[in-house]
Amino acid sequence: MKKWKLVNTKLLCRSDHVSVFDDTVILPSGKTVTFTKIELKDFVSVLPIVEDKVVLIKILRYPRNCLSLEIPSGHIEDGESPKETAFRELEEETGYRAEQLESIGSFNPLSRSTQEAHLFIAKNLKKGAQRLEVTEQIEMKLTPIKDLPKLLTSGIIKHPPTLIALQRFLFMNETGENFSV
Amino acid sequence: MKKWKLVNTKLLCRSDHVSVFDDTVILPSGKTVTFTKIELKDFVSVLPIVEDKVVLIKILRYPRNCLSLEIPSGHIEDGESPKETAFRELEEETGYRAEQLESIGSFNPLSRSTQEAHLFIAKNLKKGAQRLEVTEQIEMKLTPIKDLPKLLTSGIIKHPPTLIALQRFLFMNETGENFSV
Repeated sequence: MKKWKLVNTKLLCRSDHVSVFDDTVILPSGKTVTFTKIELKDFVSVLPIVEDKVVLIKILRYPRNCLSLEIPSGHIEDGESPKETAFRELEEETGYRAEQLESIGSFNPLSRSTQEAHLFIAKNLKKGAQRLEVTEQIEMKLTPIKDLPKLLTSGIIKHPPTLIALQRFLFMNETGENFSV
Repeated sequence: MKKWKLVNTKLLCRSDHVSVFDDTVILPSGKTVTFTKIELKDFVSVLPIVEDKVVLIKILRYPRNCLSLEIPSGHIEDGESPKETAFRELEEETGYRAEQLESIGSFNPLSRSTQEAHLFIAKNLKKGAQRLEVTEQIEMKLTPIKDLPKLLTSGIIKHPPTLIALQRFLFMNETGENFSV
């Protein structure tokens, strides 16, 4: 299968977290089309396990402007590896410090972007200090692992990294299989 | 938990599929901040089942400009219900016509947007005619259900609706549970 050929790119707008471009591309058929591309920062999401519970957070998500039940997430800053971000964000958002992180793969949240999301499981946690950003209102919710199937089928969780990480965690618990990175 | 209060919105750019705004909002703390919001069309993704196989498609995804293994997806057009879109996109992308569709929930692909993704499972399929859009290069791949766990742990699939729908399908097969809509 042939790739698309980029012949021109035009910046439409840029803000702190989002840049949008109109790319002019030649399709394998020879036809020229314009495709809108979105640049977003890569991020990590971390599923923290404390004994027989997972640590979820309730966070207000704008523009939906409602509470979302999620695992901790955060953008990868310049010079950080995904794992370094995961250690940092876990402690900032939950106050838990992890001794080890296990990667459980990655995905691309948006087809119109090259953004990557990296998923981790955090075990052997120690209580540290929560340090929230000005826009973050976060409430922690420890949920027993045995309640996860019911929580997943309830439809309450709408956040893809959380859905994927929780489903992978249950799958690993059942089968003993690991996820390729 | 208090909501954010929108006091001003400024259009940064608009293209066929993407609009970006800088919203000025007052946080519950009283602080005023600017938040970049992205408007994207809602979409559906459909997992088609043919006997003991699922129908996956290989599609070239720009700007990553590489093949992605996915279930069929498409934007909800004006006046369509998610289910109507699912019937239409399934047939356009795979040539299969479904007699029935089962909803397996929804999610929000991007925290910075109110975009919704609706997931369906399609059964009792009849062969119709594939009708692709100009930008679509699609190759179908029938995958035995028994191979899905290995496919999921391989890390090949990077498309969130596909990851979530396949995991839900396996979960339903194992437990007999359904997902709330």
